[in-house]
This record gives sequence, structure tokens and C-alpha cells, in this order.
Amino acid sequence: MALTHLTSWINEGIPGFDARLAGMLADACPAGRLLDAMQHGVLSGGKRLRPYLVLESARLFGHTGEGPLRAAAALEFIHCYSLVHDDLPAMDDDDIRRGRPTVHRAYDDATAILVGDGLLTLAFELLADPATSTDAGVRLRLVAALAKAAGASGMVGGQLLDLAAEGRFDLAPQPLDADAIIRLQGMKTGALIVFGATAGALMQPEVDQRLLQALADYGRSLGLAFQIRDDLIDVEVGADIAGKATGKDQAAGKGTFVTLLGIEGARARVAAETQAGMAALAPFGDAADPLREALSFNATRIS
Amino acid sequence: MALTHLTSWINEGIPGFDARLAGMLADACPAGRLLDAMQHGVLSGGKRLRPYLVLESARLFGHTGEGPLRAAAALEFIHCYSLVHDDLPAMDDDDIRRGRPTVHRAYDDATAILVGDGLLTLAFELLADPATSTDAGVRLRLVAALAKAAGASGMVGGQLLDLAAEGRFDLAPQPLDADAIIRLQGMKTGALIVFGATAGALMQPEVDQRLLQALADYGRSLGLAFQIRDDLIDVEVGADIAGKATGKDQAAGKGTFVTLLGIEGARARVAAETQAGMAALAPFGDAADPLREALSFNATRIS
Repeated sequence: MALTHLTSWINEGIPGFDARLAGMLADACPAGRLLDAMQHGVLSGGKRLRPYLVLESARLFGHTGEGPLRAAAALEFIHCYSLVHDDLPAMDDDDIRRGRPTVHRAYDDATAILVGDGLLTLAFELLADPATSTDAGVRLRLVAALAKAAGASGMVGGQLLDLAAEGRFDLAPQPLDADAIIRLQGMKTGALIVFGATAGALMQPEVDQRLLQALADYGRSLGLAFQIRDDLIDVEVGADIAGKATGKDQAAGKGTFVTLLGIEGARARVAAETQAGMAALAPFGDAADPLREALSFNATRIS
Repeated sequence: MALTHLTSWINEGIPGFDARLAGMLADACPAGRLLDAMQHGVLSGGKRLRPYLVLESARLFGHTGEGPLRAAAALEFIHCYSLVHDDLPAMDDDDIRRGRPTVHRAYDDATAILVGDGLLTLAFELLADPATSTDAGVRLRLVAALAKAAGASGMVGGQLLDLAAEGRFDLAPQPLDADAIIRLQGMKTGALIVFGATAGALMQPEVDQRLLQALADYGRSLGLAFQIRDDLIDVEVGADIAGKATGKDQAAGKGTFVTLLGIEGARARVAAETQAGMAALAPFGDAADPLREALSFNATRIS
């Protein structure tokens, strides 16, 4: 499918969105080293896929403007914090992210830890503000859902399981089967994507459980396809194109979808999840095409 | 003054409170290494001063039971996360906390980073839950106030300023005057104490601005007296009694209230802030005695 909405987001939407992120950071943090480093961690030329999901999910329910924008920013701040912490030497030890030095390389480890802590905290400050929604119940629902997705039973827990599976913590590497990796990645990267996909349904005064479920199913398929595609990029693409170190997972003997399913098997699973995600959006008809484009885009991306 | 309320808190209140913290952690985090390490970081024999402030501030407005308890837990989780991250080698590099190995020493740096991230996130999940208050506006007010206190313009920003003042980041140490240290400590440790002190006023359906202000003034005085007392303990008391490394600030050439004011000057300022904090509580009469006890206790504590 033609990626008209996503192309428009990338060419016209992101510059304005990034300018708003910059403004929110400057409002929340006094000028100085911390603000500079937060900006380095956030304003980095990302594709802003998660905010796109929030904005397009919200649009399905007629929500546009400031509210969805703030929810999108909150989600992106959480995503960026997780990258800053995951890149630390104590975690994945990455020097390059999106073609630039990671925050701890451009600054130092202490600053990077505080950048992550500050971004994580700011996400909840943004959501709690009346500018996000005049409906207090909606703001609370967003806070609760994002906290759940990002926390110990979601992203943070998934990252720890991932490190354990790699053989950190003086443990032997734990070979995971496909179900265990799907569960792990569902926590580590899937939960935030599901939050983005379901944001529109959560913004309704009364949540329609059927539509919430449809968007969650879409989000789970997109998240899984996204992670498998990431694993494929790690073996298919050079670091110059991917804008980050590649081949690392392979070198670390890390269980990935590619090592488990093989390259062809992984490609087939991306295709299957892409199909399943498309099908989950049926209740929304053509209005959900922008969300479908995210699946199409992911299926062929190389960075 | 006799510390009857505080003594009762320490002897009878804390065991039950800690049991609730343990239960909340187990509810939020699947069993395994992350939960174990979160428990290590939280269930550590702390004095739980901040939860005490929340509970006693709430009691002034007639709020008891589950709501204040959850707000107290959220604040304590934020406090504990900040200790876990601050103890990391990249930050203050402390091996011992409350007489036990710090989380990164008992586990490892990656786990300690994730423990902090998980605790920070859990605090907001707890506050957003209807069990904290049936009044959605109250829950949102607590989320917003705690995020503000903990974030880049509060605790996180204060920690970065503190590291900068020490001469980290390849910068020369920045000698701070008393006003600058008061501002820094107001962010780094004062903001969370003010949150605890004002929690009761924030739990009212309609906030009484005069009473909120009185509690904030009390909290600022307590926070400042608390920090000066910490600096005094660093020079007065051996590590065996304090339960953590002492003399470190002095050795690091770090500007503290003691280096700026001298030991006698620092003691005098503790006394002055203790007085000011007592006076700020006048609108509440004797009902605020439990909060006054926190000031009295701090003025003579040795750990």
C-alpha cells in the first residue's frame, strides 16, 4: 500500500512534533547540562513511530490537537528514556544510536542515567496535566496504562529478562524458545507499541472494549513484526545503513527470532503478523489505513 | 518534645507499612531477579520518614486508611529509586546503604538501573489507581505534584547540579554559596519532603491554599534542616553508626553546609529551621504534633 500518511508524517509532521518536544523539555527542565543532554536523547532524528500510532489511533475516535499530541509526547519520552538507559555500558553498551553518539558517550554515564530518570518522570507530568484532556478519568487511564506498559511487568521487566537470557548476572545463557521470546519482546518493546495503538480508545470518556481489543491485537502484531524486523536488520544490514551497531546480537550468541526461526522463517513470521495486524483493524474500515501503513512500512524497513 | 507518634510509627507502624510495600512490589513485578532486587532496594530498614509525613499530613485533614497509605508508598518508592540510582558507580559510587550492600553491589549495575526505573514507574501506577482516592482530581493532583517534585526541575535536576558542583563532567568544582546550596538541596532532597508534608492538603477535594502553603513552609524547613543534619552526620559520626560511608563529602572537597557555615554555624541553622518549621504549623494547633516530632527527631539524629 502507498504510505501516504506515514510519508506526510515523516516529511511534514515530525518537524513540528519535534519542535513541540523541544518546547516541552525546555518548559520542564532549567537550562544547562541536563536540558542539553535530554535534548540530545530525544531530538535525534527518530522515525517517531510510537507518536504516529498515538495520533492516528486518536484520530479514529475524532481526537486531534493538543491532547493526542501530549499523549504522543509522553510515550516518546518513555521510549527515549529506555534507549538512553539501555545504551549504558552497564546495559547494552552502545556507542552509536541513529548515527550519533549515545547520550552517555556525548555526555557521561551519570548524566545519561539522570536524563532517563527525568524523561520517565516528565511523561507522567505531561499526562496528568489538564491540557492532555479535560476529562480527568481519561488522563488517569492514560497514566495507569502507560505506567503498566513501561514498568516491571512491561518494558523494564522485559529488559531484565533479555539481559538474563543473554547470560548476564553470572548466569549461563538461557536458550529461549519462540514462545518465551515472544513473551519477552511483548514486554520489552510490545507493551509501549500497544499503548500507542490503543491510545485513541483510551481517550474516549467510556472505553469501547471491543475497539480497544481490536487496537491491542493490532498493536501486538505490529510490535512482534517490528521486533522480528529489528532482528532481521541486525543480520541483513550494515551499521552504516542501520545507523547503529549491527551483528551484535548474533555475536553475543543472543537468542533472537532469526536464530530461532532462521532468516526465511523470520521473514515469514513478519508477513504473517503484518497480515494479522491488518485484519485486526477491520472494525475501523478505511479510516485505519494510517495504522495499516505502519505495518507495511515495518515489513520492508532497513533501519 | 516527646516523640510519641514517631516512636509508635517506628515500633508499630513501619512493620505493617513495609509488609504493604512488599505486597505492592509482588503485585507489580513477576517473581524473579527484578522483584528480588526491588525488594532489596526498598525493604532495607529505612526510617520511612517520608511516608510518615504523608500519613500524618493526611490525618490533619481526616484522611486515613488506604488512600494515604498508597500515596506514602508512592513517595517512598520514588525515594528508594533515587537512592538506588545515586549509589551507582557512575553516580556517588556507594557500596553500603543502611548497613547493607547497595543494590548494584548485591546484584549488578544493570539490575540496579532497572530497579530504579521500575520503582519510579510503579509510583505513578499506584497513584493513578482508584484505590488511592475515589476523587479523580485528587489522584491527578498527586501524580502531577510528585512528578514535578521528582523530575528535572526537582530531584533529578538537583542531583545533576550536585554532581556538577563536585567537579564532575570534566568541569572544575564550582564553589557554591549558601543560597546556591539551599536551592540545590531544595531540589535534590527538599522537593520530595515538601510533597510528603503537603500530601494531606493535596488530598482535599478543594485545596485550601493557606494550609497548603503552611505545610509547604514546614516541609521546606524540615528538608533544609534534614540536609544540614546529614552534612553534620557526615563529619560527626563514624560509618559504623551512620550505616553508610561517612567523611566522603569532606574528602571529595564537596561544598556542604558544614564547609560553608562551619560545624557550629550548621548546628545553629538546623535549630533555626527547626523553629521555623514548628512555627509554620501554627494553623493546625496541637493536631500537627506528629509533624513537629519529625523536626525534633531530625535535630538530634545520628544516622
